[in-house]
Amino acid sequence: MRTTTVTVTGMTCQHCVSAVTEELEQVPDVEGVDIDLVAGGDSPVRVRTTGPLDTDAVTAAVTEAGYTVRF
Amino acid sequence: MRTTTVTVTGMTCQHCVSAVTEELEQVPDVEGVDIDLVAGGDSPVRVRTTGPLDTDAVTAAVTEAGYTVRF
Repeated sequence: MRTTTVTVTGMTCQHCVSAVTEELEQVPDVEGVDIDLVAGGDSPVRVRTTGPLDTDAVTAAVTEAGYTVRF
Repeated sequence: MRTTTVTVTGMTCQHCVSAVTEELEQVPDVEGVDIDLVAGGDSPVRVRTTGPLDTDAVTAAVTEAGYTVRF
């Protein structure tokens, strides 16, 4: 198990956190997601995976939720 | 049909708008809800009803969604 911290911008509330969490949990190998909401700013998102993080899949998931991610 | 405009505070994004809309649509006599989001501020919410607005029910619905309402 490894944890990668990425930065997601644009979340403003716990609904946003739920939307991002739900999308990320659908990415293969993702075992857990932990978000420290910084409303309207850069929120650190810790993603626990069984292997290397699939950054393309993470980008797609965060984009699907309506936000942007930086690695 | 009549329309009453109330003020809901605390919404920050379209998820919040959806949450408030869904709760208000469950109030008896409510036929429609139209929200102009003012993120983090006072958002006007137009509620269309078949009769007089049940302010207690509206307050309960907005509170259930996690926000506050003023009449």
